[in-house]
Amino acid sequence: MSDYAAPLADIRFALSQIAGLDNVLSLQGFEDLTPDLIDAVLDEAGKFASGVLAPLSRVGDTQGARLENGVVRMPDGFPEAYKAYVDGGWNGPVFDPERGGQGLPWLVGTALNEIWGSANLGFSLGPLLTQGAVELLEAHASAEQKDTYLENMITGRWTGTMNLTEPQAGSDVGALRTKAVKEGDHYRISGQKIFISYGDHEMVENIVHLVLARTEGAPEGIKGISLFIVPKYLVNADGSLGQRNDLRPGSLEHKMGIHASPTAVMLYGENEGAVGYLIGEECRGIEYMFTMMNNARLGVGLQGLSVAERAYQQAVAFAKERVQMRDAVNGGKEGVTIIHHPDVRRMLMRMRAQVEAMRCLAYEAAAGLDLAKRLADPDARKLAQRRVDLLIPIVKAWSTDVGQEVASTNVQVHGGMGFIEETGAAQHYRDVRIAAIYEGTNGIQSIDLVGRKLGRDGGEAMGLLAAEIAATVETLRAQDDADLSAIVAPLSEGLASLERTTRWMVGHIGQNPGEALAGATSYMKLAGYVVGGWYMARSALATVGSGDAFSVQKRQIARFFAEQLIPEGVAMERPITTGGALVAGMSVDAF
Amino acid sequence: MSDYAAPLADIRFALSQIAGLDNVLSLQGFEDLTPDLIDAVLDEAGKFASGVLAPLSRVGDTQGARLENGVVRMPDGFPEAYKAYVDGGWNGPVFDPERGGQGLPWLVGTALNEIWGSANLGFSLGPLLTQGAVELLEAHASAEQKDTYLENMITGRWTGTMNLTEPQAGSDVGALRTKAVKEGDHYRISGQKIFISYGDHEMVENIVHLVLARTEGAPEGIKGISLFIVPKYLVNADGSLGQRNDLRPGSLEHKMGIHASPTAVMLYGENEGAVGYLIGEECRGIEYMFTMMNNARLGVGLQGLSVAERAYQQAVAFAKERVQMRDAVNGGKEGVTIIHHPDVRRMLMRMRAQVEAMRCLAYEAAAGLDLAKRLADPDARKLAQRRVDLLIPIVKAWSTDVGQEVASTNVQVHGGMGFIEETGAAQHYRDVRIAAIYEGTNGIQSIDLVGRKLGRDGGEAMGLLAAEIAATVETLRAQDDADLSAIVAPLSEGLASLERTTRWMVGHIGQNPGEALAGATSYMKLAGYVVGGWYMARSALATVGSGDAFSVQKRQIARFFAEQLIPEGVAMERPITTGGALVAGMSVDAF
Repeated sequence: MSDYAAPLADIRFALSQIAGLDNVLSLQGFEDLTPDLIDAVLDEAGKFASGVLAPLSRVGDTQGARLENGVVRMPDGFPEAYKAYVDGGWNGPVFDPERGGQGLPWLVGTALNEIWGSANLGFSLGPLLTQGAVELLEAHASAEQKDTYLENMITGRWTGTMNLTEPQAGSDVGALRTKAVKEGDHYRISGQKIFISYGDHEMVENIVHLVLARTEGAPEGIKGISLFIVPKYLVNADGSLGQRNDLRPGSLEHKMGIHASPTAVMLYGENEGAVGYLIGEECRGIEYMFTMMNNARLGVGLQGLSVAERAYQQAVAFAKERVQMRDAVNGGKEGVTIIHHPDVRRMLMRMRAQVEAMRCLAYEAAAGLDLAKRLADPDARKLAQRRVDLLIPIVKAWSTDVGQEVASTNVQVHGGMGFIEETGAAQHYRDVRIAAIYEGTNGIQSIDLVGRKLGRDGGEAMGLLAAEIAATVETLRAQDDADLSAIVAPLSEGLASLERTTRWMVGHIGQNPGEALAGATSYMKLAGYVVGGWYMARSALATVGSGDAFSVQKRQIARFFAEQLIPEGVAMERPITTGGALVAGMSVDAF
Repeated sequence: MSDYAAPLADIRFALSQIAGLDNVLSLQGFEDLTPDLIDAVLDEAGKFASGVLAPLSRVGDTQGARLENGVVRMPDGFPEAYKAYVDGGWNGPVFDPERGGQGLPWLVGTALNEIWGSANLGFSLGPLLTQGAVELLEAHASAEQKDTYLENMITGRWTGTMNLTEPQAGSDVGALRTKAVKEGDHYRISGQKIFISYGDHEMVENIVHLVLARTEGAPEGIKGISLFIVPKYLVNADGSLGQRNDLRPGSLEHKMGIHASPTAVMLYGENEGAVGYLIGEECRGIEYMFTMMNNARLGVGLQGLSVAERAYQQAVAFAKERVQMRDAVNGGKEGVTIIHHPDVRRMLMRMRAQVEAMRCLAYEAAAGLDLAKRLADPDARKLAQRRVDLLIPIVKAWSTDVGQEVASTNVQVHGGMGFIEETGAAQHYRDVRIAAIYEGTNGIQSIDLVGRKLGRDGGEAMGLLAAEIAATVETLRAQDDADLSAIVAPLSEGLASLERTTRWMVGHIGQNPGEALAGATSYMKLAGYVVGGWYMARSALATVGSGDAFSVQKRQIARFFAEQLIPEGVAMERPITTGGALVAGMSVDAF
């Protein structure tokens, strides 16, 4: 049976107590949704994840996707699981019901994505990519294009891909060379794209590739890039599938993890050129891409949480089963399960504290997406959008760094067994490693946080967040509870450190960008641990007055986070404020 | 060609300026050795590593060792490389020249082990295990046993293994069940051992298994364990090989990394019982094992350094080659190599600072092994031994944790390419993960540091180390150099934190072991970063007055370590001193 059970109590807690599910459900467009309905959706998702997706995770790892005679073969069970996923209506929860979606908030869609990612990361990537492609088409495609593609993609009958990267154009997407030559009402696309997740497979009848390419005469760099729909099979006017387009998977990458996900080199236009349809206007491709960036980065950040949750569950199960050594604290002659050993328990508490903080952060960012889109008041929407913009790089970078650590701790809890592939701990460790890299490396996220998010408003959005943290500290001070009181000092120290370093960053990013950027990753870590600590404090405050085990533990874990993890963020202040000049000034020849 | 070059300048610097090579060469038994000879040995080792071992590292990973029809097949090229290694006299550098060794200090043997580990970790494990077995036999075997086995093992014509672990007996070796039944001048051994590195292979004619087992009527637990020599082929009185012993590899593990190293389940005595020869006396097996523990743990700690050095070299090479994005600091229209980007440079400096600190630490610990064995004055020997005992768990745990981080940073520097197996970065990341687990998990090392090393002398040995750090701080204060001056504050803060937490630990380990042990890993991290910072400061001080690039960089990197890394250690003080009660008190049911 499955070794993953969706942590529904924790998910519901984060939805309602942190991310404001009720508030989100009161937004325009969600009139028909009720908390009971959301509960039922989560229950069913948990069953599907444990029953269908999780048992295939290891199959996906060991078999992997394979390219055989030009055809991508998915691991055993994946096509059937994908069909069940589509039939269950799971593919487009957040999209328009009139086009086959479920009309749920992104907040709920994010909880679902957490569950899919925990159950089977390799599987979940396909739908995640399709989700991104749908978003892009919803925002920028013509009415005709929407009619042609959206319903099939939202339901999951077709999947979507994002084609940005080329060998010389990774983080530097502006360096791409794929060409688009106008020909009547369409373009001919030719070029090579790499790292295309779910670039090809046979689980669906058609694949809708969204491809960045440069039209003839377009400027160099990102300003000359346009976005095209390049379907695997052309679609006839009546919606039926026509001829095969001039594109194919050239090879699949041998990756360290997420083996089930076919990561393809895609070859466009080896013959007459692949038929592509321009989205919107020429040379606005990057701008269009940006509209889905926040959601995509949220989706990847969530993978850190997803794998961490799975790893935590596995570590707890092992620690409660494995007998080794006597109890060093309480004595006794017999061996005890290793969960009795303080160092093991510390590892488990650390994993759990990190998981809970990541969940609160990701869910509140997701709620922000809904608020920014649907609040009635334009100023309130704008404010919500600024908060989302600030949180998203933290969700992406901090959560994927922490997710790696949690997966590694799971390996460590398992001891020698953790290094043996059959145990499964190694797979999570290998799988999650990609999340810090794709969808903008964590270095890029940190530079975005410092350069763009602090830089563009002089730290104002961060100042508003800091004010909320300060208010939480004051609320904590007023409580009569040992665990809550213990949070005050570390959280307020973290806040002070965040405020000082924010001022330093704002003061340096313009004049001394080298020094500032040298501290970007450190600033990200500081922001992550302080903001994470704030979420944990809010979790703890939400349980005040309740003496049940769940509530008591929420307060204990929040205290643990404050005492043990916030200091790791605060430790970044010196590197940020003193170390940049040395890094920036070091000669290239010194390496 | 090879992508690894032994960092001989850095190795020589650490040998002479930190570990006191001259001092070691003045010890009894090293009269014939000169610095020139050592230089020549290192040069040759570097050539052999780059020319023969490093190119096989990836072959070892992709092919792995395989068990076919009961026979372990090594990856292509490994048998030839092993033969060349043996023929070159590399197998027993630190052992008795009269038995085929080279009579070099452990200090030099450690530098060699660093190089082998960097070049090909999977290969290097075989000789490392043999080295451990030789040490044990040298210390505890009878004259006849030594005559029978040692020369062949020291030269590498035979290899050795260590058989401790059983399915129910990992960290808890006292739980082992393998039986030894006396039969005349030998014993019959039966039982199953797991995780036996180089448990079987065909590169040599014989394998000498050292096996822990329990004799009839022996007490439960570690006090009833004896140590046996169990050769694959029995050895006739004339030294020739006789009949095959009743033992075989049952299977090889599928591991996340070090694929070239055959990790066997060893089955002893499926038929008449394997013939085993008692080493020393019955029931003293664990005591004997302890005599080689420090060296074995040094060897594994060194693997963190080895892989980190290799990863650092790969990251630098990639960062100097990969063009991506314009220079955000200095402008320009063209893309630049990514080493120009501050965040990438920060990653490289961090890797390098960590590598250099690990090297100094490991080498000084190795020098301590020589001093503790060979100093003329017994009190001085004892003092040296206490320092070694204190440093060894730090070498093992801190260096393997840091080695993982460095290998992960290399993946990150490579971006998407880092996740592709062909790049090689992933292999280092997977390989090094075991080092934090075997030879006593890092949790066990931390408990050893706190419980045994601080506990047994009330923190006196740590106090002596702290006094030396304090003296270094004073020397730094007297310097007129911006980089050296910048080290003073972070190092003295680190020292103060180490002293406070040491007092706290000493005060708690007896009365509140649960609280103390909950902070053991955090204390290890603090000790590692402060001691690492001290070594870097000493490196910097050793270059005072020199203005060449090498010396300037040593001071810059030391400053970087102080500013950027020591704070991460200091951040552990709060978790250690405030967090333990919560961890110790958490109910098992809470998880």
